[in-house]
Amino acid sequence: MIHITDPLIATYLMTLQPEEDPRLLAMEEKAKAMNFPIIDRQVGRFLHLLTLLKRPKLVVELGSGFGYSALWIARALEDGARIVLTEYAEKNLAYARGIFTEEGLAEKAEFRTGNALELGQEYDDIDILFIDMDKYLYPAALEAMLPHLAPKALLIADNALWRGRVVETLDTKNNEPVKKFNEIMSRHDSFFTTIVPVGDGVLIAYRLS
Amino acid sequence: MIHITDPLIATYLMTLQPEEDPRLLAMEEKAKAMNFPIIDRQVGRFLHLLTLLKRPKLVVELGSGFGYSALWIARALEDGARIVLTEYAEKNLAYARGIFTEEGLAEKAEFRTGNALELGQEYDDIDILFIDMDKYLYPAALEAMLPHLAPKALLIADNALWRGRVVETLDTKNNEPVKKFNEIMSRHDSFFTTIVPVGDGVLIAYRLS
Ligand SMILES: C[S@@+](CC[C@H](N)C(=O)[O-])C[C@H]1O[C@@H](n2cnc3c(N)ncnc32)[C@H](O)[C@@H]1O
Ligand SMILES: C[S@@+](CC[C@H](N)C(=O)[O-])C[C@H]1O[C@@H](n2cnc3c(N)ncnc32)[C@H](O)[C@@H]1O
Repeated sequence: MIHITDPLIATYLMTLQPEEDPRLLAMEEKAKAMNFPIIDRQVGRFLHLLTLLKRPKLVVELGSGFGYSALWIARALEDGARIVLTEYAEKNLAYARGIFTEEGLAEKAEFRTGNALELGQEYDDIDILFIDMDKYLYPAALEAMLPHLAPKALLIADNALWRGRVVETLDTKNNEPVKKFNEIMSRHDSFFTTIVPVGDGVLIAYRLS
Repeated sequence: MIHITDPLIATYLMTLQPEEDPRLLAMEEKAKAMNFPIIDRQVGRFLHLLTLLKRPKLVVELGSGFGYSALWIARALEDGARIVLTEYAEKNLAYARGIFTEEGLAEKAEFRTGNALELGQEYDDIDILFIDMDKYLYPAALEAMLPHLAPKALLIADNALWRGRVVETLDTKNNEPVKKFNEIMSRHDSFFTTIVPVGDGVLIAYRLS
């Protein structure tokens, strides 16, 4: 089995900045208990940093689950900025809404139940698009969403290294679309793209114009 | 020996975006031939992205070698922005100056020979500080340079995982100062800090005010 990052290094990163925030810890526990896939905590920190740097007005997330990644992003939003959460499962979004309300962040968020690919297309001038839905849909997400990005937008996708399977021949159902997605963005003339091996691999593409 | 990133994954990242730029390739060859330590190419891409996002007016680099990392950064600078290269070795900087001139980037750069810690302190309102000098000097660099950062500045340091030695007991001369540096920034109230396991580990600290 491939470890994208050496396990000792991963542990060092986790202990260097022990998470003490009860809300984040409770969400991590919930994910573990439900065996529900959320972003790695280090990816959360990284999304928070990218959001601080980008200072977006509008963030759209495709595949929000119960709001763990959205919380990391929302905590970095400036006044007047907002994030749109999209998710099939109504009860996940209801949980997210509860968390955002407790945090005093509810007025910065919109909670949309339904097909993320359709909902996302209702927005224009998106400054950050974060993609974390079913992996086989990644190429379709590009086709649907690229026309809706603002100039100098940031497109970010989790699981760009798909547990290391991009270099293996397992799980081709998801593996092939993720590889195709990586290739499309890496070769796209309008974007500067790089994949950072944090957590399960994060693709970041900056729109050049 | 620790591989921070799995070697197959590292190769995947390199082949996904093969570097075709003759200037970058020549500098990588030169580093290999001289056995001179430069940043990993993926770190170069990452610095380029961070610079695009941050849109700095002033970048200061501590430990520029012959200019490979500075070139990745400089290519992302907007008109009117500049980068200061600092380096002990006169002949390294002379080479960097030649490269920057060929690129048409010379007027965006200042080339300063001498002790990076002293030279760096001549600048104020630094938007991006990139640290890549002798590792045992990392804590001293913080003491010297933090007062010279602009609000919302980005402090970036290469080799934050020091070839994995931060989790080993080898090479304590450099290892201990790097660990101390990581701890100081991770616990600093005025910065949001994260370490990204790209290349040899990149610490990024965003000044919150
Ligand atoms: C990996 S989880 C998201 C985790 C979340 N981003 C986090 O890190 O906290 C993927 C989620 O996307 C949802 N999903 C997948 N495809 C979708 C689609 N086409 N439309 C809406 N939701 C979708 C799934 O229901 C699941 O909750
Ligand atoms: C790792 S190399 C820099 C590589 C360069 N950043 C790159 O990636 O292309 C470190 C350089 O820092 C220089 N250096 C180390 N300590 C220094 C100091 N206190 N003042 C000036 N230069 C220093 C060394 O001469 C060496 O060229």
